[in-house]
Amino acid sequence: MTKYLSPQYEDVKPLLAAVDCIIFGVQDNKLKLLIFKREVEPLAGCLSLLGSFVKIEESVEEAAERILFELTGLKDIYMEQLHCYGAVDRDPGGRVIAIAYWSLIRVDQNHLEFNVRTHEAKWISIDRIPELVLDHRQMVEMAISNLREKARFRPIGFELMPEEFTLGQLLKVYEAIFGHPIDDRNFRKKLLNSGLLIPLPKKDKSTSRKGSFLFKFNQETYQKLLLEGYSFGF
Amino acid sequence: MTKYLSPQYEDVKPLLAAVDCIIFGVQDNKLKLLIFKREVEPLAGCLSLLGSFVKIEESVEEAAERILFELTGLKDIYMEQLHCYGAVDRDPGGRVIAIAYWSLIRVDQNHLEFNVRTHEAKWISIDRIPELVLDHRQMVEMAISNLREKARFRPIGFELMPEEFTLGQLLKVYEAIFGHPIDDRNFRKKLLNSGLLIPLPKKDKSTSRKGSFLFKFNQETYQKLLLEGYSFGF
Repeated sequence: MTKYLSPQYEDVKPLLAAVDCIIFGVQDNKLKLLIFKREVEPLAGCLSLLGSFVKIEESVEEAAERILFELTGLKDIYMEQLHCYGAVDRDPGGRVIAIAYWSLIRVDQNHLEFNVRTHEAKWISIDRIPELVLDHRQMVEMAISNLREKARFRPIGFELMPEEFTLGQLLKVYEAIFGHPIDDRNFRKKLLNSGLLIPLPKKDKSTSRKGSFLFKFNQETYQKLLLEGYSFGF
Repeated sequence: MTKYLSPQYEDVKPLLAAVDCIIFGVQDNKLKLLIFKREVEPLAGCLSLLGSFVKIEESVEEAAERILFELTGLKDIYMEQLHCYGAVDRDPGGRVIAIAYWSLIRVDQNHLEFNVRTHEAKWISIDRIPELVLDHRQMVEMAISNLREKARFRPIGFELMPEEFTLGQLLKVYEAIFGHPIDDRNFRKKLLNSGLLIPLPKKDKSTSRKGSFLFKFNQETYQKLLLEGYSFGF
């Protein structure tokens, strides 16, 4: 039990806080989600988001970073606080409020696959989400809608791209996020006019002999549009 | 102390959760914020947002509704969860995580003035925010940026309007939210083309002899754009 300094705080009944992480990645042109088997009772063995109680000596954000690091071995992952879930009966194990975070990671990174396997975690396509414990499904749904909202008005899908990429690859990521086809010509036109992309003097020839031009991001425009927002009409 | 059902939860150190409310209103064509004097130690007497601990028998959202009701006497207020603030040392009184909500209320409503006075609360212009306790200033700044973000892509400023209003009044509210002048002609053109407004066969003659046409919202378009978003280019 922590020592509360203020006597006026002493009569308040404490509760537990947990962090749950919705980890998105794009694999095989699909938006996927990392889930794993819950280790603690109640509901041990059921499918779950990755979560942990917030320790008394760490901030809520540090808890989220710790969880992401433990699972993926990665630091400095793109992470957004989603929502605090505070229903009285949301967890049969006790009065626990949960702060959910969503993050985007590139699935193909070094060591990630190894770490994911060690934790027996799995990438699940977001159109085939199985039953999850507690209110985790609700969290996932809100995270998807939050991700889509961000992707409409901010250059967010780019967190999922390698440093150099083709317009076709970027389109596929956006299609995976929104879960429907996007008009190719319109997409290319808007992206090329946005100033977000810098064309590189080389081609990716892995998918066709003619090849596709590679691009990288214009960091300045990227940061500007991150702040100011835009609408590509997706 | 609450009884935790799950033995695996028992070793976790509990903490306190509080809700803080950022209440916005428009008064004298300015975006304002309700603040009041903190009643509990530590820092009693300092200026603060309205907040309260989350009770063990209420959800986090219910706590926010309770606080808003106690202060304003109003129910069904527009309310958005802003963020969970979870730094370890944010409250010198103990380990308290705070879930902040922002809400929009119409300042001119019945009984509101009376309730606000009873609580010795004050409407403060957002460009003259005094020193606030703990991390409340940070909360206010995030809430303002969140409100502006919403107002750019969703029909949100309308929560502040009476049922019938002129375009000039709506413009003033938007200018108050963004804190800068908005081009009048452009604003009228975009709003009239949006399908959001239904012209009424009457005029408001309080500000000029010629009068200004009154409008009300098209609820159907309003709900549609609330879901889909738009960009008016504010």
